[in-house]
Amino acid sequence: MQQEFKKEIDKAEILVEALGYMQKYEGDIVVIKYGGSAMTNEIIKKSVLKDIAVLKSVGLKPIIVHGGGKDINRMLDRVQIKSEFKNGLRVTDKDTLEIAEMVLSGKINKGLVTHLEQIGTHAVGLSGKDGNMITVEKVMPQGEDIGFVGKITYVDTTLINTLLDQGYTPIISTIGLDEKYHAYNINADDVATAIARAVKASKLVFLTDIEGVLENPSDPSTLISKIDTESAKELFESGIITGGMIPKLKNCLDAVQNDVKRVHILDGRLEHSLLIEIFTKKGVGTMIKR
Amino acid sequence: MQQEFKKEIDKAEILVEALGYMQKYEGDIVVIKYGGSAMTNEIIKKSVLKDIAVLKSVGLKPIIVHGGGKDINRMLDRVQIKSEFKNGLRVTDKDTLEIAEMVLSGKINKGLVTHLEQIGTHAVGLSGKDGNMITVEKVMPQGEDIGFVGKITYVDTTLINTLLDQGYTPIISTIGLDEKYHAYNINADDVATAIARAVKASKLVFLTDIEGVLENPSDPSTLISKIDTESAKELFESGIITGGMIPKLKNCLDAVQNDVKRVHILDGRLEHSLLIEIFTKKGVGTMIKR
Amino acid sequence: MQQEFKKEIDKAEILVEALGYMQKYEGDIVVIKYGGSAMTNEIIKKSVLKDIAVLKSVGLKPIIVHGGGKDINRMLDRVQIKSEFKNGLRVTDKDTLEIAEMVLSGKINKGLVTHLEQIGTHAVGLSGKDGNMITVEKVMPQGEDIGFVGKITYVDTTLINTLLDQGYTPIISTIGLDEKYHAYNINADDVATAIARAVKASKLVFLTDIEGVLENPSDPSTLISKIDTESAKELFESGIITGGMIPKLKNCLDAVQNDVKRVHILDGRLEHSLLIEIFTKKGVGTMIKR
Amino acid sequence: MQQEFKKEIDKAEILVEALGYMQKYEGDIVVIKYGGSAMTNEIIKKSVLKDIAVLKSVGLKPIIVHGGGKDINRMLDRVQIKSEFKNGLRVTDKDTLEIAEMVLSGKINKGLVTHLEQIGTHAVGLSGKDGNMITVEKVMPQGEDIGFVGKITYVDTTLINTLLDQGYTPIISTIGLDEKYHAYNINADDVATAIARAVKASKLVFLTDIEGVLENPSDPSTLISKIDTESAKELFESGIITGGMIPKLKNCLDAVQNDVKRVHILDGRLEHSLLIEIFTKKGVGTMIKR
Amino acid sequence: MQQEFKKEIDKAEILVEALGYMQKYEGDIVVIKYGGSAMTNEIIKKSVLKDIAVLKSVGLKPIIVHGGGKDINRMLDRVQIKSEFKNGLRVTDKDTLEIAEMVLSGKINKGLVTHLEQIGTHAVGLSGKDGNMITVEKVMPQGEDIGFVGKITYVDTTLINTLLDQGYTPIISTIGLDEKYHAYNINADDVATAIARAVKASKLVFLTDIEGVLENPSDPSTLISKIDTESAKELFESGIITGGMIPKLKNCLDAVQNDVKRVHILDGRLEHSLLIEIFTKKGVGTMIKR
Amino acid sequence: MQQEFKKEIDKAEILVEALGYMQKYEGDIVVIKYGGSAMTNEIIKKSVLKDIAVLKSVGLKPIIVHGGGKDINRMLDRVQIKSEFKNGLRVTDKDTLEIAEMVLSGKINKGLVTHLEQIGTHAVGLSGKDGNMITVEKVMPQGEDIGFVGKITYVDTTLINTLLDQGYTPIISTIGLDEKYHAYNINADDVATAIARAVKASKLVFLTDIEGVLENPSDPSTLISKIDTESAKELFESGIITGGMIPKLKNCLDAVQNDVKRVHILDGRLEHSLLIEIFTKKGVGTMIKR
Repeated sequence: MQQEFKKEIDKAEILVEALGYMQKYEGDIVVIKYGGSAMTNEIIKKSVLKDIAVLKSVGLKPIIVHGGGKDINRMLDRVQIKSEFKNGLRVTDKDTLEIAEMVLSGKINKGLVTHLEQIGTHAVGLSGKDGNMITVEKVMPQGEDIGFVGKITYVDTTLINTLLDQGYTPIISTIGLDEKYHAYNINADDVATAIARAVKASKLVFLTDIEGVLENPSDPSTLISKIDTESAKELFESGIITGGMIPKLKNCLDAVQNDVKRVHILDGRLEHSLLIEIFTKKGVGTMIKR
Repeated sequence: MQQEFKKEIDKAEILVEALGYMQKYEGDIVVIKYGGSAMTNEIIKKSVLKDIAVLKSVGLKPIIVHGGGKDINRMLDRVQIKSEFKNGLRVTDKDTLEIAEMVLSGKINKGLVTHLEQIGTHAVGLSGKDGNMITVEKVMPQGEDIGFVGKITYVDTTLINTLLDQGYTPIISTIGLDEKYHAYNINADDVATAIARAVKASKLVFLTDIEGVLENPSDPSTLISKIDTESAKELFESGIITGGMIPKLKNCLDAVQNDVKRVHILDGRLEHSLLIEIFTKKGVGTMIKR
Repeated sequence: MQQEFKKEIDKAEILVEALGYMQKYEGDIVVIKYGGSAMTNEIIKKSVLKDIAVLKSVGLKPIIVHGGGKDINRMLDRVQIKSEFKNGLRVTDKDTLEIAEMVLSGKINKGLVTHLEQIGTHAVGLSGKDGNMITVEKVMPQGEDIGFVGKITYVDTTLINTLLDQGYTPIISTIGLDEKYHAYNINADDVATAIARAVKASKLVFLTDIEGVLENPSDPSTLISKIDTESAKELFESGIITGGMIPKLKNCLDAVQNDVKRVHILDGRLEHSLLIEIFTKKGVGTMIKR
Repeated sequence: MQQEFKKEIDKAEILVEALGYMQKYEGDIVVIKYGGSAMTNEIIKKSVLKDIAVLKSVGLKPIIVHGGGKDINRMLDRVQIKSEFKNGLRVTDKDTLEIAEMVLSGKINKGLVTHLEQIGTHAVGLSGKDGNMITVEKVMPQGEDIGFVGKITYVDTTLINTLLDQGYTPIISTIGLDEKYHAYNINADDVATAIARAVKASKLVFLTDIEGVLENPSDPSTLISKIDTESAKELFESGIITGGMIPKLKNCLDAVQNDVKRVHILDGRLEHSLLIEIFTKKGVGTMIKR
Repeated sequence: MQQEFKKEIDKAEILVEALGYMQKYEGDIVVIKYGGSAMTNEIIKKSVLKDIAVLKSVGLKPIIVHGGGKDINRMLDRVQIKSEFKNGLRVTDKDTLEIAEMVLSGKINKGLVTHLEQIGTHAVGLSGKDGNMITVEKVMPQGEDIGFVGKITYVDTTLINTLLDQGYTPIISTIGLDEKYHAYNINADDVATAIARAVKASKLVFLTDIEGVLENPSDPSTLISKIDTESAKELFESGIITGGMIPKLKNCLDAVQNDVKRVHILDGRLEHSLLIEIFTKKGVGTMIKR
Repeated sequence: MQQEFKKEIDKAEILVEALGYMQKYEGDIVVIKYGGSAMTNEIIKKSVLKDIAVLKSVGLKPIIVHGGGKDINRMLDRVQIKSEFKNGLRVTDKDTLEIAEMVLSGKINKGLVTHLEQIGTHAVGLSGKDGNMITVEKVMPQGEDIGFVGKITYVDTTLINTLLDQGYTPIISTIGLDEKYHAYNINADDVATAIARAVKASKLVFLTDIEGVLENPSDPSTLISKIDTESAKELFESGIITGGMIPKLKNCLDAVQNDVKRVHILDGRLEHSLLIEIFTKKGVGTMIKR
């Protein structure tokens, strides 16, 4: 009879294999920065959201933070607003912000809610405006005014905790308010990091379109699996870390030195990378810890 | 000295006058259908939201339901989608729905949240998608397919109650999901009524651009202050109630016969009409009760 | 139409004006020392109790401490007990105490309860005996025995907090017990101060029959609106503060240096002085802060 | 060694003997009408209050209802108010009521609180005014106006339950308010019965100065130990029950037919009659059950 | 890269496949009658306990009921107590019962606790004596006295619910007490059924050493997958169900007609039969429903 | 009449006498090491368990820790396992441990549960395995391997506190698990002490077969009633404390210096020694305090 049920037994054994991880992470908060391919590729998107639903079902508490990616550009094009950039940052005037916010909070956010609800996981879509969750101040990179682009000065976790306690998965778009209640767009990585720190998340996961931190950015085989405070220092000094990875990694190190246990830079292009990282022995991407 | 404080004493006496109403309605849920001038006129808007903030502060529990009014049309124009109507209902294809939802959930909804937060009242903006709150089915008026227009079959109050219990004021946009998780636009009056019934609201208030129910629609002096089940029957039979008021009033009667204590059709163009109706002896508009 | 509702709109605007104060003081405990004209003048009495009911209704938590004033004298006269005073303090033998307690706990206290209940605010009348709330020791001013006059050594807040949590307004008469469970009369100002400190009240309000702290006691126009720890020192040194005001002010300073945020010496003869102080920009009397 | 501890072993065995009763009555509410010798005789008084303290300590929840007995008369004499009676009921004009209430709520009530606190049991003294606990209407025996004498129309148990839940023993004086918030004196037996029914007490105990219900009122050996609905009928019909015992017994029967399990008419002159009745096999007085 | 992670992706997909079942059964109580091979074969034992740990981890609430099987016989042999049987039931004198209870409650029960703790699942070992959980009366099959063998008359679920609420998995041995507090051994199937009914379990699972209910007991291919009240009647009438299966099946039907949703007769010899039944589409054994 | 009730009045007075002690110890946890005569003498056993039931009923929270005494030896004899001792400790091989655990957790433990349940006190029998309550490591006295004998490294109080909160009396057998989930027998005095410290017990009571700590072990009249940290030092230095009393007393001193208020070494042979010690002025045995 065992033969007849060979396939089912194998499945059961995989559940059993996951048991240790379920028990280890029970009740832990995981903040997931959702973006890149996970947002644009329908197959990857489904895989990621199902992974998140599984995390929720086996006892973890996921929080999703998303940016807007190409949808914002597309909508700006449709209404013929020209995009302008300074120092790599989008100049965000009032009109641009209005479109960006509609896309972020009205389309992508509620779309992710629908997806999770469809899979059977209760989700609530929020922006940083709700419950005055995210307070920002205007950024002036190199003294230049680029409009309504903010950096986070405070995260109020009351609303997030209320929802987590009731079993909801919060999905958060990257809009915050300054002290005068003007809206600002915020970098999604920064929102994820700030929220992870504020809720003292066990894990902060960045779903990216790269393999992780690479010694040689053009050679995936040079992936650095683990970075800690010590080794990070060396990496910076040796000049291995360059470009956009510098602020990203600094962000991660900052998080693990402040209440977040582990940060993961995962390759979101790999199906089920979330579950594989959390529920198998095989690590994916780069893990940063203290 | 009384002279010196004459103005302040008068103010205090008005607070004292409101005391009886505060005590009477303490803990009561009030669902407010927000629309019309209250949405378009900035002065009225401020007045309405401050009224709601006062209701919250003296112990009531407001819930706001809003439509999209002219903002949706404006955005559809901007992206050059032509509006088509059948039997007075907008034909809502996928493209139209996408724009409508962005405006409703991404702009108006979060705008109202910001306004209330600025006044000092914690608010959370939701659509019927969040927590799978509003389930709908497609409507086919006179057998005709007009796209993604839904009527409500179920309201799940769990999320609303969670937020009310924690002191948040829910603000709800009129998007729901059908059993297959497709999004639909819904008539805002219907959403307000369905939610009022589901949460067993004490009051359901429609903020409109008319004086209330009039015997002669062109003569404001013919306002009918109170309607109950009995008198409603007569009004229908006598042909006094006509046109769009027929379904609206039927809706109201339905509500008061099902868990909602009172329904008010208020003139939203009158400043502070909400506070005047609830906190003074002087009634505004038409009140419908069992 | 605005014209027709002019008066109601004005009223609503006054509620809106109070909104900021309601939000600011939500959940705050206010201890009110009730005495003087507020106790003897029926109009003032009603005004004060309605003010307290409003405070309760908009979210504050009032506690009333009252003395006995002239009612004790009147009753002592009726039973032909002669009043004797030493150093300005009533010599309180067993007979005098019995009458004083009956008047305080049996007449004035329950009378205030009835008044508040009639206005619609649930109140509970207590003395310091209930739940062993107030522990005292005998005072011997200048070494002289003046009978059962006590000073507070301990306040047990359990009963007060139980009642506040359930929405009751505690009304407290000035009788305490010593370690051997003998009853003592206590100065009402001291009871109010001790309770305010024990419950960490946000505000402690003395309803008096004076305008507040005056530079020149015979000239109301010399009212000092604000006193802080610094300026108090100067006032004492300069000899401006004299007589009975010295211990009173020391009491107040003591309170603001120990858990109480603000102390107010209000003119209880002014109608609605409580609401005016708390809910308008116009200050009444003297405010003492750190 | 057993010899040396003979006395202590005996004591321990008595505690063990009481165990079954403690377990049986754990959590049960007992309403005790306190009056007669228990109020006037200092030895009996102490014995009764210690009994109540023991009941509380082993897990029951006592509520004490007291009248005023001779103290009211004494005080009326002192202030030279003449007592007038009609049909055996005191004519209670406004002056009489004022004195009665001061004695009841200001002296006896707080005196009992002090006694229980001294024994180590936390007590709270209330009148029917507190929390609007007892609502009455004027009685007009045989159509005659005898002033402020009321009969109970409603008991609000919220305050009592709040206090019982927090471990306080409520002590209640017999003053209630009518719908217009006028104070009335009430018969203490009626207050005890009404409260017992409202809180669904397990036991209602009348501490009296008689042996119980006697077949021959002048012969204590004719005590009737148990009465149920059946036998009561016979007692009434046979004319054995006469005079003041008729309403008292009807009251008791009414109670056991409405939520109260057992009513006891105990001889309060017997030391520890409460503990003997509840914690030994030997019954004292008359027990009424369904 | 997908290639490199092929195996991990497959594992993740199996977790995703299980998601629907996890969501469906979240919070459901499952009573598992543990016996047969699952008790004697170490490999099967581990597989069963890990299955139970997985059920617990993904949100179900398992309760384990176990018998003693061969361990009791072995111990009786060691102490040279001869086993006697009447009508297939062991004659259980006082000596036999003592040994049986030691083996059940002292060895097997605590052994299962240890196993589950080792896997990381908090378990508590109980017998029907604990908290007076199981009340029995003596059985006299065909009027014959076979000693301390009992049948269940009452299950008190307080202790079980306390433990489930705190996240513990109760493991229950088959000893109960009669009204005189004498211990009795009870049939394990009966204990599992009685507990499942008392806690209103969603599922009751019998881990047996047979394939399930077979049309032809000697031909496993004649397995009956589903039985409902209707078909059961036919099975009984047609004489297909015979021997020991008659009471077992009657027991199951009784359960599904009283608060238990589904009963499963599983082949405990099949590895992971529990997980396969609950988390895959492939049914194992026979399922009985209303 | 007092005469007739003489005996009952005396009983009531004893309850009243105990009142002060009940109030003093209300809510306190008492850990009782149960052994010696209390385990073997049926009369003493009953007396002790009734004492514990009384403690529970008047508001204390008892926890019972028991060893196995002669029952283990008797069972080892029955299965012909020879007992071997090294340095006074039983060599505990796997076979011996199996028998010891069955007797401890399957017979004595559940027997005590039955006894308490019969008296009306809800009890739950646990071993250190349940909920992974007691973690141990192997002891190697003087470097010698004596098998599965452990000393406690950690007590997890979660399960105990869950049960105490729900009103259950935990009864604990002396089996623990090491980090690899192997079972070990533990000295019962050590278990009682470790649990008392972990739950921060008010009292830790050792029921022994001696009068207490004696200056001259052969002369009961030399009982030392009280020992504190100071006097203990002297006793050790002077050589009065010898033999097995040295580790016992050190254990006690350790406890009172770590969260336990008082330790009592009681003569368990004296009937009701527990109640006498806790509820009368007369001390029994030796009390150790800081």
